[in-house]
Amino acid sequence: MCPCQNGDNVATDRNEMVSVDLSNKPKVNGVNGVNGHTNGVNGSTAPQQRRNPYAPRASDFLNNVSNFKIIESTLREGEQFANAFFDTKTKIAIAKALDAFGVEYLELTSPAASEQSRADCEAICKLGLKAKVLTHIRCHMDDARIAVETGVDGVDVVIGTSSFLREFSHGKDMAYITKTAIEVINFVKSKGIEVRFSTEDSFRSDLVDLLSIYQTVDKIGVNRVGIADTVGCANPRQVYELVRTLRGVVGCDIEVHLHNDTGMAIANAYCALEAGATHIDTSVLGIGERVGITPLGGLVACLYAANPEYVKSKYNLPMLREIENLVAEAVEVNVPFMNPITGYCAFTHKAGIHAKAILNNPSTYEILKPEDFGLTRYVSIGHRLTGWNAVKSRVEQLGLKLTDEQIKDATAKIKELADVRTQSMDDVDSLLRIYHSGIQSGELEVGQREALDRLLKKHREESRAETEVAAWV
Amino acid sequence: MCPCQNGDNVATDRNEMVSVDLSNKPKVNGVNGVNGHTNGVNGSTAPQQRRNPYAPRASDFLNNVSNFKIIESTLREGEQFANAFFDTKTKIAIAKALDAFGVEYLELTSPAASEQSRADCEAICKLGLKAKVLTHIRCHMDDARIAVETGVDGVDVVIGTSSFLREFSHGKDMAYITKTAIEVINFVKSKGIEVRFSTEDSFRSDLVDLLSIYQTVDKIGVNRVGIADTVGCANPRQVYELVRTLRGVVGCDIEVHLHNDTGMAIANAYCALEAGATHIDTSVLGIGERVGITPLGGLVACLYAANPEYVKSKYNLPMLREIENLVAEAVEVNVPFMNPITGYCAFTHKAGIHAKAILNNPSTYEILKPEDFGLTRYVSIGHRLTGWNAVKSRVEQLGLKLTDEQIKDATAKIKELADVRTQSMDDVDSLLRIYHSGIQSGELEVGQREALDRLLKKHREESRAETEVAAWV
Repeated sequence: MCPCQNGDNVATDRNEMVSVDLSNKPKVNGVNGVNGHTNGVNGSTAPQQRRNPYAPRASDFLNNVSNFKIIESTLREGEQFANAFFDTKTKIAIAKALDAFGVEYLELTSPAASEQSRADCEAICKLGLKAKVLTHIRCHMDDARIAVETGVDGVDVVIGTSSFLREFSHGKDMAYITKTAIEVINFVKSKGIEVRFSTEDSFRSDLVDLLSIYQTVDKIGVNRVGIADTVGCANPRQVYELVRTLRGVVGCDIEVHLHNDTGMAIANAYCALEAGATHIDTSVLGIGERVGITPLGGLVACLYAANPEYVKSKYNLPMLREIENLVAEAVEVNVPFMNPITGYCAFTHKAGIHAKAILNNPSTYEILKPEDFGLTRYVSIGHRLTGWNAVKSRVEQLGLKLTDEQIKDATAKIKELADVRTQSMDDVDSLLRIYHSGIQSGELEVGQREALDRLLKKHREESRAETEVAAWV
Repeated sequence: MCPCQNGDNVATDRNEMVSVDLSNKPKVNGVNGVNGHTNGVNGSTAPQQRRNPYAPRASDFLNNVSNFKIIESTLREGEQFANAFFDTKTKIAIAKALDAFGVEYLELTSPAASEQSRADCEAICKLGLKAKVLTHIRCHMDDARIAVETGVDGVDVVIGTSSFLREFSHGKDMAYITKTAIEVINFVKSKGIEVRFSTEDSFRSDLVDLLSIYQTVDKIGVNRVGIADTVGCANPRQVYELVRTLRGVVGCDIEVHLHNDTGMAIANAYCALEAGATHIDTSVLGIGERVGITPLGGLVACLYAANPEYVKSKYNLPMLREIENLVAEAVEVNVPFMNPITGYCAFTHKAGIHAKAILNNPSTYEILKPEDFGLTRYVSIGHRLTGWNAVKSRVEQLGLKLTDEQIKDATAKIKELADVRTQSMDDVDSLLRIYHSGIQSGELEVGQREALDRLLKKHREESRAETEVAAWV
């Protein structure tokens, strides 16, 4: 993990923190659509009377931002991450944690991959989880026969359809792909379990080929079709267009699987839901091939921002950090410092102008409420970008009586000291107390820098003497 | 940094790696638009004859995906990151590195923030960089007077316009904001330098207020207007809509500043360019308030995927890793393991089906070419998800002669061993050599597991004996 540095530690003790009033709960004033949408900006507070023109519209009845399911693929896509080697015990721990979090589906590595993969798949099916268990196989009868024997609730079938993959991977044409797909789907359906058919590298496949095969499998009763951005080349508006086009062609559910090579996998998933997708593939921290896929935490963040109540009702949000830590440890990586929600400074406010507004009303600079994720916010004030309003809030919290002019004067001194090194909360508190007692005793007035320096020096010497005495005792 | 684990080290020696033919360079078959766009999927190779229906269209003449400038704000927004404390030397090192990389603008902390901030701003202006130097100030004459004296090429002015910020931050109404904006802009312009006017929290501001103030400042000759998603609440299609609307209202350039709280800042930037934005704010690794803004590397990744030739012509791409390391060290964080381009396994391919295709043609599973960033790809084969085609490639590289049937047999053994622990390239090589010599000597035939186990055991004992002898010598 990345510790805070320069003495600017995130406070864990509440007394260490600038208090922030959490009572001002935003009221949802959203447009309630067919699927119970609220508006896209986290429910504005009362003062904002006019409606946000960019919020989702009730009329967009295909939008599934508030009506989706997560297919959690840490135990399939995640196993393709370079560092991943999950033993049975770890797989079970991850499966149970994700189930407790509330994901609707777990996707597991194909039982055809290896003997242990098969045994693990069976073991997880026997856990009796609330989440449905899926396994992910190539579009091939050999794999399908092994898969249906494991006890899974469904089988995710995939085959490459782009000219790249048709030429350089399996070498089959669309007629062969269609014939095999029908055979595999009918076989899995005959076992009474769910079946999904997905193309691979969908965004570099011929559109007519894609729509044609999706229509065919929809007609024979596939439960879901899947679009996969296997190489991570898609952008949000492409995803929106393709999903919306497909929505007009098939009646079944639509799943998307999006790689993150250009850092757009979260946004692409969001746009897929806007266009009418029903299921999103995720993995914890996004682990998977190369830089992986849509991360569970990031997806939760953007969907929470769109409709906090819906997301809170579906998932156990305070578990997110613990699940991320579990997986990070299993694959020996750090949780990225800029991870949405759980990045270690996701709720730290620093610039003076931000700190001031946050202290007045957290909604000013926060779209996610830390307390909904079992986390706390922190307002950092001991640095050169600080402002007197943030300092004033700390003065009040310490119970000191200073005028605005005096606080501005003390803030100037904090900035001067912070130009040399970042000041810890202790440093700031000491300075404020010394400033206050100087004013009280008449030793100090506004603007008397030399007098303040003298008082600070005296305090440092006294502290040192005390430390030395303490060392002798 | 996150090292590779389980013996699955990324090979640094070329002999350690499965060779991949890089000669199959993709040919660009894009649609050349007004701004010289090529298609959005990295220039497809010859076999793909039909045009991608989701690629940008020549007719969309407002699209700036291949016509943009970067405003690099590591030394302003980045300084608002919780861990950031940049001394003068570090600021200069970062400024020089970004200039050498080729960013068009550098944005620096306001000289009004502290005395050292002012001195550092002046020092960077004196470096004689190719990049234009900007500083970022509140919409206030006091700040503007200090800013224009530092020697900057331009001033970025910002003020909050959402009802949230108007009520809880500065407390001013739109009439006051407009009056002050006009005064500050005219003052900066009178000094003969660039000026940008940005609102703050634009996506929660009243649309009529926004368009009205942008139109006003455009009329008095501001160089750029800025849209800021200060709280990170926007989604890609909202960004597209707002930028496109604004594009119809002002004639000046349009800049976007996008926070990453829900992980969509890269995609939002991409959509802003599609809608006609001209300038994107970035910081190295995305550092900034909370989880920061659009990261430089991620933005480069998605724009490279859209038009590799344009991005290569503008920026020194192999420098990206070194710049990220410089900043990561300065703020004491790790480069995230799933960072686009430089994440340590961004070009590692693992699943058998992927490895096989990559060995045939890297474009099958790669939208970014590692060699353009001074990086190399790696195909991992010693794990339970491996496939016989990937193993075959290694067999050929080792100069061994085995039939497909024999390779499949050896692959089954690799999977069996990898079910217990991931096999290093050394482990795989040893197994293949032993298998090969067993076949040659007649001690082994396809399917004789016991014979193979005996040979492997013998090899292990010989190795151990050799190690012990070596220890005696």
